[in-house]
Amino acid sequence: MTTRDRLYLYDTTLRDGAQTNGIDFSLEDKILVARLLDDLGVDYVEGGYPGANPMDDAFFSEKRTSRATFTAFGMTKRAGVSVSNDPGVNASLSAASDAVCFVAKSWDYHVDVALKTTLEENLDGIRKTVEAAVAAGKEAMVDCEHFFDGYKANPDYALDCARTAHEAGARWVVLCDTNGGTLPEEVEAIVTEVTKVVPGDHLGIHAHDDTGQAVANSLAAVRAGVRQIQGTLNGIGERCGNANLTTLIPTLMLKPAYANEFEVGVSQAGLKGLTATAHAFDEILNRAPNTHQPYVGAAAFATKAGIHASAILKDPKTYEHVTPDSVGNRRRVLVSDQAGKSNLLAELDRLGVVVDKANPKLDLLLSEVKAREARGFAYEAADASFELLARRTLGTVPTFFEVSSYRVMVERRFNAIGELITVSEAVVKVKIDDETRMSVAEGNGPVNALDSALRKDIGKYQAEIETLELVDFKVRILNGGTGAVTRVLIESMDTRTGRRWMTIGVSENVVDASFEALTDSITYKLLKNGHAGR
Amino acid sequence: MTTRDRLYLYDTTLRDGAQTNGIDFSLEDKILVARLLDDLGVDYVEGGYPGANPMDDAFFSEKRTSRATFTAFGMTKRAGVSVSNDPGVNASLSAASDAVCFVAKSWDYHVDVALKTTLEENLDGIRKTVEAAVAAGKEAMVDCEHFFDGYKANPDYALDCARTAHEAGARWVVLCDTNGGTLPEEVEAIVTEVTKVVPGDHLGIHAHDDTGQAVANSLAAVRAGVRQIQGTLNGIGERCGNANLTTLIPTLMLKPAYANEFEVGVSQAGLKGLTATAHAFDEILNRAPNTHQPYVGAAAFATKAGIHASAILKDPKTYEHVTPDSVGNRRRVLVSDQAGKSNLLAELDRLGVVVDKANPKLDLLLSEVKAREARGFAYEAADASFELLARRTLGTVPTFFEVSSYRVMVERRFNAIGELITVSEAVVKVKIDDETRMSVAEGNGPVNALDSALRKDIGKYQAEIETLELVDFKVRILNGGTGAVTRVLIESMDTRTGRRWMTIGVSENVVDASFEALTDSITYKLLKNGHAGR
Repeated sequence: MTTRDRLYLYDTTLRDGAQTNGIDFSLEDKILVARLLDDLGVDYVEGGYPGANPMDDAFFSEKRTSRATFTAFGMTKRAGVSVSNDPGVNASLSAASDAVCFVAKSWDYHVDVALKTTLEENLDGIRKTVEAAVAAGKEAMVDCEHFFDGYKANPDYALDCARTAHEAGARWVVLCDTNGGTLPEEVEAIVTEVTKVVPGDHLGIHAHDDTGQAVANSLAAVRAGVRQIQGTLNGIGERCGNANLTTLIPTLMLKPAYANEFEVGVSQAGLKGLTATAHAFDEILNRAPNTHQPYVGAAAFATKAGIHASAILKDPKTYEHVTPDSVGNRRRVLVSDQAGKSNLLAELDRLGVVVDKANPKLDLLLSEVKAREARGFAYEAADASFELLARRTLGTVPTFFEVSSYRVMVERRFNAIGELITVSEAVVKVKIDDETRMSVAEGNGPVNALDSALRKDIGKYQAEIETLELVDFKVRILNGGTGAVTRVLIESMDTRTGRRWMTIGVSENVVDASFEALTDSITYKLLKNGHAGR
Repeated sequence: MTTRDRLYLYDTTLRDGAQTNGIDFSLEDKILVARLLDDLGVDYVEGGYPGANPMDDAFFSEKRTSRATFTAFGMTKRAGVSVSNDPGVNASLSAASDAVCFVAKSWDYHVDVALKTTLEENLDGIRKTVEAAVAAGKEAMVDCEHFFDGYKANPDYALDCARTAHEAGARWVVLCDTNGGTLPEEVEAIVTEVTKVVPGDHLGIHAHDDTGQAVANSLAAVRAGVRQIQGTLNGIGERCGNANLTTLIPTLMLKPAYANEFEVGVSQAGLKGLTATAHAFDEILNRAPNTHQPYVGAAAFATKAGIHASAILKDPKTYEHVTPDSVGNRRRVLVSDQAGKSNLLAELDRLGVVVDKANPKLDLLLSEVKAREARGFAYEAADASFELLARRTLGTVPTFFEVSSYRVMVERRFNAIGELITVSEAVVKVKIDDETRMSVAEGNGPVNALDSALRKDIGKYQAEIETLELVDFKVRILNGGTGAVTRVLIESMDTRTGRRWMTIGVSENVVDASFEALTDSITYKLLKNGHAGR
């Protein structure tokens, strides 16, 4: 087999993706996503814009990836200011990143109207900034903003910008379709011209989806010679989004036209974990997943048409362009249960639940899982609750405690000095062995109060839940409106061992759903501690 | 100007689109959508599959379009049965349609395994079926199923199928990428070959989005010679969807590469009404619109980055690939923590809040917005709350009602017959003018109970909030854990006018956050109704 060219994947989920209408990353979110991307196997993680806002400054106080090149975004130096005196460039270079990507103007009109400077000064800015980054020991790259529109308006100048960046020592010169309006055939033709001044293995493409062709534009650029593709997870991004890496990765790795020619940094394991990665990302942001997303969407391999079912099972290749498990997804043929049972056994095995394949209770468990999932449970996101359900159905979970009743109250009123305050109080009755205990607690909100009351006094188990801490709490309303079903996912941690687990609760009532998830969490911990219970 | 080629748009929303996971058209829905499509100006409306189900039989009992060619979907005759004895073909031909589109196998493997017949028999089926349709006075066309995979497996046979359909008198031979896995460069190359046996002006393309390239594939086919594009509104369809006509139409009509070469049946007025059409379609199906959809999405022309605002307003062409009003959409310069004063003024102007640029309270408003956004408010998602905040800060919102206190209680206990139940109850004290009213209500959960109690009795405004309905309710926990900040976004609708608006609340307490968003929603409605209040 001939040697394949290396294609580099550059993720800008945390920088360009942060511009998405409706998405705001917290610092915790960014740390989690960086880890997700690192595990996936992208080559570059552009973490944000240090110097532009306090959170990104904090994010860049340390390196957040172990394999991917941790990259800071910035801007080329302003006109009339030296590189060393430009605070933006300084912030970029002092960030704890391996690389810096500077956006630069490459459309003469923008240089004139937005920067209000000369074409030559802009080139000098590019040159000096890149040189400074290289001198500082960083991998330097330049995003040529509005490159394709700039090329159409003034091809020589656009090429000058690209060449200048390259000659100054930039590892990558990225051609950005900032407005997203360029067509694939135009991208291919223009990139071909650019490769005459900058070699393809130093060129990147940054596409947007404003004509629904960001993926096609990225691949057109690769065919014309570029070797870096910039994009985001699940295609998030300003306006219509950036090029979708979740779509590009499987296409590059599974379609012979690309897989035979190019090698990427994502491993086979990373590819198989892609569906889980895409879902985990949506969970972190509490976003409703796009069921129709190519490759990883819940419906990507689902077919309604009954006629296909048997034919598909016989030879999937005749109805599916790639196999769903190659990307960690599932075929959903809405007729048979056979796929369901084998999935279930695989899951139980993974969780260490020992069961005989012939155990009749397995069918019961399978239908229980399906019924609950129809109601809103999402067991793929809540391992601990699933394990508890499985063990209970198969008959092996002890009862550690029982909550006979609870009452939660939230009151908003004026206090004695005329201030408007809100108080939340919870009362819980818990039965352990044959003794009933009653506790009351206050909290920031109804769920916080309930959690405090639940854990205030559980008798002989008190010491063990001392180290139980709630790490995250996600609420999702399914089917809209205030009368709809609420799903609560709780992430808990044992501060002693660092072990984490997820539990879930579903109810019309957010407090009730939280209660389910909270009690599951406590039960799970006691189970794992190895108690026999009652 | 040289004569442009005519490009025909074929809409299969009501047939292939009906296969979408989660979408089911009622007869009424189909009638409404057919009218929408007719008004839009597509050339063909494929309404369904008469003979396959009773609803489609009813739909095809009369012609449902006045301009578009009303088309029935069907299948070529079965092997071993004559055309006149094939009930499927009979149903197709007796439908009240101008045209019939028959799906036919064009992949030898499928002819063998799915149809269980010979290659020659399949060709004969195609021939006889098309001839029968032509004899019946219908415009006949053939969908060559799995054409591209079929061509890759056995190019001669695939071409035979296409040629046979053409020679039998089909107006159109449609090349279908049924699995959605073909790449644009492959489509272009294969279509080029097909044009050697069937002229391009008798060829169509039917693409699916399984690699995120349905639009690119459709345009690649057009560049190679086809003159009919099949797709759906808003790209609905099985698995990852069909080619999105809502994306293709503006690209074909606004991008010179296509607009200079091709003419479509959609008028300028139809194009300007495209955003409204796309939204109306989502409304008919009660689907949450895709805010990021190209051209027509709410975010398609929205930008967060403060630096762009002044530049965009100066010369939109430098930041937008087409003008939003060309497709009936709007430019939205978002207010967010990255925004500046010019963004703020643009937003206020858009919302109809009249203010002098030099008004000193603007700085107060800007810092209030930034401070609240740092706490968790996301005003770009909550226009109504933002407008209320703006009007309050600038001093012009009347006080319609005041909630002096509320108390919400959630209790889980055993009822009289030993069942475990959860009840939620809310008590609200509201002051209107100088009168205090107290209401109690129950609900599915604490927020539902509070909403019901709040709206149970607000005196003289009661009639106006009769038509106020909660449509959606989103909860997001920021910074994790149960002691963190909760952001609640509520979408409300006036059932009388269909108008929708979004409000937001932020608090450590989910009930409190919901309370804020709920009271904003009611206040906003009363404000828009034009009340002076107190």
